[in-house]
Amino acid sequence: MADTYTIGVDFGTESGRAVVVRTSDGASVGEGVTPYAHGVMDQRLPDGTPLGKDWALQHPQDYLDVFQQAVPAALRESGVNPDDVRGIAVDFTACTVLPTRANGTPLALLPEYAGKPHAWVKLWKHHAAQPQADRINALAEQRGESWLPRYGGKISSEWLFAKALQIVDEDPDTYAATERFIEAADWVVWRLTGVETRNACTAGYKAIYQDGHYPSPEYLGALNPAFADFVQTRLGTDLSPLGGLAGHLTEEAAGWTGLNAGTPVAVANVDAHVTLPAAGVTEPGRLVAIMGTSTCHVMVDTNLREVPGMCGVVPGGVVPGLYGYEAGQSGVGDIFAWFVKNAVPAEYYEQAERENLNIHALLEREAAKQAPGEHGLVALDWINGNRSVLVDAELSGMIVGLTMGTRAPDIYRALIEATAYGTRLIIETFEASGVPVHELVIAGGLKRNRLLMQIYADVTGRPLSVLDAEQGPALGSAIHAAVAAGIYPDIFAAAKAMGQVSRGVYAPNPDAQAVYTELYEEYRELHDYFGRGANEVMHRLRARRRAE
Amino acid sequence: MADTYTIGVDFGTESGRAVVVRTSDGASVGEGVTPYAHGVMDQRLPDGTPLGKDWALQHPQDYLDVFQQAVPAALRESGVNPDDVRGIAVDFTACTVLPTRANGTPLALLPEYAGKPHAWVKLWKHHAAQPQADRINALAEQRGESWLPRYGGKISSEWLFAKALQIVDEDPDTYAATERFIEAADWVVWRLTGVETRNACTAGYKAIYQDGHYPSPEYLGALNPAFADFVQTRLGTDLSPLGGLAGHLTEEAAGWTGLNAGTPVAVANVDAHVTLPAAGVTEPGRLVAIMGTSTCHVMVDTNLREVPGMCGVVPGGVVPGLYGYEAGQSGVGDIFAWFVKNAVPAEYYEQAERENLNIHALLEREAAKQAPGEHGLVALDWINGNRSVLVDAELSGMIVGLTMGTRAPDIYRALIEATAYGTRLIIETFEASGVPVHELVIAGGLKRNRLLMQIYADVTGRPLSVLDAEQGPALGSAIHAAVAAGIYPDIFAAAKAMGQVSRGVYAPNPDAQAVYTELYEEYRELHDYFGRGANEVMHRLRARRRAE
Repeated sequence: MADTYTIGVDFGTESGRAVVVRTSDGASVGEGVTPYAHGVMDQRLPDGTPLGKDWALQHPQDYLDVFQQAVPAALRESGVNPDDVRGIAVDFTACTVLPTRANGTPLALLPEYAGKPHAWVKLWKHHAAQPQADRINALAEQRGESWLPRYGGKISSEWLFAKALQIVDEDPDTYAATERFIEAADWVVWRLTGVETRNACTAGYKAIYQDGHYPSPEYLGALNPAFADFVQTRLGTDLSPLGGLAGHLTEEAAGWTGLNAGTPVAVANVDAHVTLPAAGVTEPGRLVAIMGTSTCHVMVDTNLREVPGMCGVVPGGVVPGLYGYEAGQSGVGDIFAWFVKNAVPAEYYEQAERENLNIHALLEREAAKQAPGEHGLVALDWINGNRSVLVDAELSGMIVGLTMGTRAPDIYRALIEATAYGTRLIIETFEASGVPVHELVIAGGLKRNRLLMQIYADVTGRPLSVLDAEQGPALGSAIHAAVAAGIYPDIFAAAKAMGQVSRGVYAPNPDAQAVYTELYEEYRELHDYFGRGANEVMHRLRARRRAE
Repeated sequence: MADTYTIGVDFGTESGRAVVVRTSDGASVGEGVTPYAHGVMDQRLPDGTPLGKDWALQHPQDYLDVFQQAVPAALRESGVNPDDVRGIAVDFTACTVLPTRANGTPLALLPEYAGKPHAWVKLWKHHAAQPQADRINALAEQRGESWLPRYGGKISSEWLFAKALQIVDEDPDTYAATERFIEAADWVVWRLTGVETRNACTAGYKAIYQDGHYPSPEYLGALNPAFADFVQTRLGTDLSPLGGLAGHLTEEAAGWTGLNAGTPVAVANVDAHVTLPAAGVTEPGRLVAIMGTSTCHVMVDTNLREVPGMCGVVPGGVVPGLYGYEAGQSGVGDIFAWFVKNAVPAEYYEQAERENLNIHALLEREAAKQAPGEHGLVALDWINGNRSVLVDAELSGMIVGLTMGTRAPDIYRALIEATAYGTRLIIETFEASGVPVHELVIAGGLKRNRLLMQIYADVTGRPLSVLDAEQGPALGSAIHAAVAAGIYPDIFAAAKAMGQVSRGVYAPNPDAQAVYTELYEEYRELHDYFGRGANEVMHRLRARRRAE
């Protein structure tokens, strides 16, 4: 019998990537990438209209370009016959969301709205809706909304209701013209199939869908009277399960992609969550950390627990029948990138160049020469804010222990350790809430940093497994496509056959683990001092910074 | 009547400097510098014997070279006839101290002791006697020694008794061979005159001479039985007042210097303290900050007050008849130097080179573009420990408020501000103890940094005057020489005629002052949290660092 294939398309922050995957074993046989022509728009719209502070928008046409360029390129590279491609699925950054007309046309593409910032796609890292998030949280707490604890006690400014409320508050005209408000993940599936679906994952994690419903009209109306009917008029309330069939490729979309019309299209997914099946993880106890510029922690469990400071718990939010948990750290790779750009003197760059090394590789090598604790530093990993467990974007970075002998590799190592302490705190918070974690499975670009991996094993005291696939989310989407196409009966079977993971690649070193347990206590004390109200200096400094 | 001159010789950490000064107006007419051939010995002795961690020694011959090279050079440059040189005086770093035989021969210069580290000059920044200082403080506190509060409650590891006790503890043979233990300041005067004197300034500030006596034999014996008779056997108990006449140049010293034998030689002084008359400061209320790698704060007052965390209060310790107060910050210019070497990326160096600027000048210019508080940072100025008011060398640096937008000039400015907050805290501690401060007089190399000066005015809310002489301490010594030679009746008259200061060069900006008062409150809260026992993380990190 001939091999069959599915295609996974991963929509990232700067580009979209398509991978053709063999359904028998998950092997990748072809790949294509399309950078977004407009990238992240954080200064101005295409027509020059300036954007405010903390805005981050995207252009919907950039996503369609991925179908028209990356998918055919991947197919071409694979040499696979379109007849053997049995399904396609997408995953996306989230909450990345846009307003459209009833037929799915983005407001941003209508000439009369193209000059309005609120008509465009709000990217996940659009942070200008913080005042709205603050109101959402304050009112929910005041009213004792039952969904609030499912999100660790705080709704993020990155999520759907904050972004929608910002439109209602700031641009009533655009809001009035908004007939559908939809995740970009679901919007691109709509473009492929002609069918509007809403995936259960983003609805649950990003749009406060809990216990069968979204927030009530009374609650929303109390935020802004014009917002009361938002769910009924603009959101889809029929949710589609992950791995489900959304529809089939239209003739138009077949033309874009080079695939056959009628090819099954799976329900959309979120990039982080789709990574679990890619790593073969569909059972409790195994925390998947997708580590790149930021880190997402995703896991499943049989029980519903309310974990303080997590991003959300959603039944079926990762795989059917299990509760999907998400937590995160808002800056990880970002912090290391900030550091090497802003605080590493020329001598290290010169040495790296002489030895033909990446600057990170050089600093990693130098930092690896020292024993845990030797640099005498402790840092807080909040240079880009704190997602879990404090859920506070206004926090900032701190480092203590600087001496005349402190050198750049010392600080680099302290920053790595700080992010590892942050992950340990998330694990301990899960466990204290009744969600056990006995293994870390690492995905994302940082899995290549061996020192960092060993530090994570030593700090968390857990063995580390590593996702083998280079394109984890795209593989995860391809696995979902295989389920939607009926090649596998369910995601469990598909993940088992197609997932790519090496188990136990890093084991904790007991001596290092003992030192790190002491240093972690230092981290915890500073974490609580700066993060839990004992000293609100970070908030005051941030407010002052904004005021100037 | 012909002009007359005196010579001031300033012994610094790396070199000695001689200045020929006109006694009528304090004008400098000739100058010579001699770098110490052996510099600071912190790795090994001249014979290769390795030194321990935190050791810092010097070679006594290097000091004599200054008399033989820098003084004749200064005289030559001035064109002054030795007959018109009416006196010479020295000032020195302190406590810089050495063991000698009864005739003044340093043990280090005797072949049988040359290989013993404890035989050499212990430089002020020799920090290896911290365990001894800890014992000195613990025992003094336990016994309620009345002198302890005169030093802010803590004796420094840099001072004479800690350094002497280290010899007793670690090298009894060398201690047994020590017939005199003497400040290098007094030792060089001994070499010039053939007369052993002990100046009141170092005795009071560095050797716990209070209320007419040194610590008691009972106390010293309780530290180490062999230490009980230290004062009686090895210290001079006849103290000489500042501005007094120590003796006259010997024929040998006349030969070294090119001066006439019999030229009056003043009692030795400390570099920081001698700077006050150089700046024309001999009255209460004017705090002189000598700002270089570290900062010394010196002032006089009519009252004896016990100020927590100051370095010391000594009657006549600066000028006769007034109480001399000293406080300090152990890292200031040092911190900025550490920062530009270790945490400033190449782009700033490249820009500085393009614009033909010093890196500090470039960072200062960039930092000056922002308003107070705009960078959103607060730092603690303890990268090199804290001298006043916490008297704790084991503290370390801390910075909070780091974000993805933080750039090198932001941190540079935050570090400057941190040192200014440290000075404000010292001022407030003086005032709270009944020693008012209404003006800052700035001496030392950092007086040239205009942004730093303005920040100090804004943070402290005091007008800043600036010492005009390039060689403040040497001028101060020349002023003392003029008193010792009888050209002026006292230091008040001499300082008035010869001191060089510009008053009110920087005035506080009220708006900036208001912002800084709020930021200073943040500093204070963090200062107390990290420095006064609420969280001993800095001590634990330091201990761990030492252990590795």
